[in-house]
Amino acid sequence: MSGPFFRSRWVEPPPRVVQRDPTGLPDGFRAAGVSCGLKGGGGTDLGLIVCDAEPADSAILLTASATAAAPVRVCRDRLRQGSIGAAIVNSGNANAATGDQGLADALALRESAASALGLDPDRVAVAETGVIGVPLEIEPVLAAVAGLAGSLEPEGAVAFSEAIMTTDQWPKRCTLESDGVTISAQAKGAGMIEPGFATMLCLVQTDALLPDAEARLRSAVSTSFERITVDGQMSTNDTVLLQASGRSGKELPTGLLEAVLLQLALEIVADGEGATRVGRIEVSGAADDREAEVVARRIANSPLVKTALLGRDPNWGRIAQAAGAALAGADVGELGPESISAEELAGDGDEVELGLVLDRGSGTAAVYFSDLTHEYIRINAEYTT
Amino acid sequence: MSGPFFRSRWVEPPPRVVQRDPTGLPDGFRAAGVSCGLKGGGGTDLGLIVCDAEPADSAILLTASATAAAPVRVCRDRLRQGSIGAAIVNSGNANAATGDQGLADALALRESAASALGLDPDRVAVAETGVIGVPLEIEPVLAAVAGLAGSLEPEGAVAFSEAIMTTDQWPKRCTLESDGVTISAQAKGAGMIEPGFATMLCLVQTDALLPDAEARLRSAVSTSFERITVDGQMSTNDTVLLQASGRSGKELPTGLLEAVLLQLALEIVADGEGATRVGRIEVSGAADDREAEVVARRIANSPLVKTALLGRDPNWGRIAQAAGAALAGADVGELGPESISAEELAGDGDEVELGLVLDRGSGTAAVYFSDLTHEYIRINAEYTT
Repeated sequence: MSGPFFRSRWVEPPPRVVQRDPTGLPDGFRAAGVSCGLKGGGGTDLGLIVCDAEPADSAILLTASATAAAPVRVCRDRLRQGSIGAAIVNSGNANAATGDQGLADALALRESAASALGLDPDRVAVAETGVIGVPLEIEPVLAAVAGLAGSLEPEGAVAFSEAIMTTDQWPKRCTLESDGVTISAQAKGAGMIEPGFATMLCLVQTDALLPDAEARLRSAVSTSFERITVDGQMSTNDTVLLQASGRSGKELPTGLLEAVLLQLALEIVADGEGATRVGRIEVSGAADDREAEVVARRIANSPLVKTALLGRDPNWGRIAQAAGAALAGADVGELGPESISAEELAGDGDEVELGLVLDRGSGTAAVYFSDLTHEYIRINAEYTT
Repeated sequence: MSGPFFRSRWVEPPPRVVQRDPTGLPDGFRAAGVSCGLKGGGGTDLGLIVCDAEPADSAILLTASATAAAPVRVCRDRLRQGSIGAAIVNSGNANAATGDQGLADALALRESAASALGLDPDRVAVAETGVIGVPLEIEPVLAAVAGLAGSLEPEGAVAFSEAIMTTDQWPKRCTLESDGVTISAQAKGAGMIEPGFATMLCLVQTDALLPDAEARLRSAVSTSFERITVDGQMSTNDTVLLQASGRSGKELPTGLLEAVLLQLALEIVADGEGATRVGRIEVSGAADDREAEVVARRIANSPLVKTALLGRDPNWGRIAQAAGAALAGADVGELGPESISAEELAGDGDEVELGLVLDRGSGTAAVYFSDLTHEYIRINAEYTT
């Protein structure tokens, strides 16, 4: 799934989509990525993305974690969410569990970017990912901001997408055009991050008009990033930002944002720690969509189902058991092979479709998940802080 | 933890407890175990336990799974729960997801035991554990019941505890005496059970007077079997039965039932699939006990925490992250090392004490859990149905 875009059987792009050079950004955007020494080894670790249009529509969604990191708190509490002009992102340090100093550092980073760009600080988002519980060495980061701003360019998407990676095995990005609108996105996923957190970041840019950016983003996230799981662990730093320059003068085509986010979400699952296969469980016939989601998520997070995905074991019983646990207290009778599709588990595909049909109503939901592998254990057990 | 009783540091037996020969049962009970061919290889797989006192107090707790197995349905819907005289238990087949025929089989098994014992069928509990989704071959089982009833004896606890095992590495049982009251218990745990279910069964006998059997059992289970997790998976067949003959004429000493159930629960965790270490996470300072339990359970089921337990990694960040996810939507600030005890992770002990102190109220809870190991992956991925 790491190749060209729209490789997943589960992504249905809208008609007339054309893939563009992934270095490209929609009209009105510039990006850059530089090294500021956080990662070590000289890798790029500081990225900036700017919308030059004024005013620009935008929306940001943040982790619901009760122990959210400093940059998330800054974005949550001190951002004009509808007109975000820029985002500065560092990898190598999540600035989480770093106390008051961490908050001050996140604010300083934002202030520095705002100053270099001539923007109000409350129009600059900040995101960070990497080691947690370790104070950020902020001085070298701040010192790199002016050079970063000076290297902004319309072809900066690749540099930016690489600067936000942690232990992702490949950068996750795309630039697509459909009906005269261009959209680009860069994401990073759930690789191992010292000492054991994983963060999902995704930044999306479009030249469409998007006055309803928040509603559109919420809706697209609800069927993509909200429907994936690697190991059921919510991060302190998860952030999804959507910016729209409006320069195309056109509406965003239906389904385009959804396809982009779903593909990037699936890449994150496929590149999850130790993952070798991606499963999709669709639950139908639940009392309502919410119940369907709860059941699907329980199945997707079941270590027994995840090891069956690894082991190519068409084990419908494990799906029945997880569903029974999710619906504890109800009585759904005995779910047998007539209600469960698990045959693809035994196949050779990297993408495995699973199904569960309940008899409780018309609720449906699908969740995407990775398998649980020896490599996951190795990564997470053999690493010691 | 597989040795003599009360080996766990977390079990506090009441004073004046004496360990008795584990073949022994309290006055008023007889037990037996025979082979009826379900397991293959000639292992014992059919057990019977009988209380000869009339009337006897009793209580039974059953899985809340919405896909409960046939024997659970029989016990739930067709049992005089306060005066259970006997229990018949087979291993080798869980009789789950077996439809109407499975229900008929469970009823036939019970009828057969009731007839052999001269009891009303609605005073006989039935429990089954083993492969699911496979019809029970009931005829050989029924044919073995008369011989089973004929071999009942007051020293039958060992034979019974072995007959209920599936892939447990050791039988889980004890017989204790305290203040003139004897209590015995037999349990089986979460080994691999084709095709991938695990079942917890526990049968407890005492010669105490126990008119409040259900309340006592519920309370003791709430701090033992309700507080353990191997892989967060609820079984279709979980059953805990408590029977009291009253023959001692005495009350049950405070703490005795709790200690017995906690020790057996800990043995089940220690003998969980692939487990090498047992952790105990105590959450305090939560808004209430319920919240504390939710947070503790989330930590205990976190694959990142479970691999840290395996890897001897004193990684407080993983505990903070799981707590943040459990409390999503709230704001607990940043949980740092001052709120989290994770040092024992790095030690050599088989039992690892972890702590999280919140600042939200006075709620507390503890959950016990196993580590997540390569052996767990091997067992569950390399086995194919």
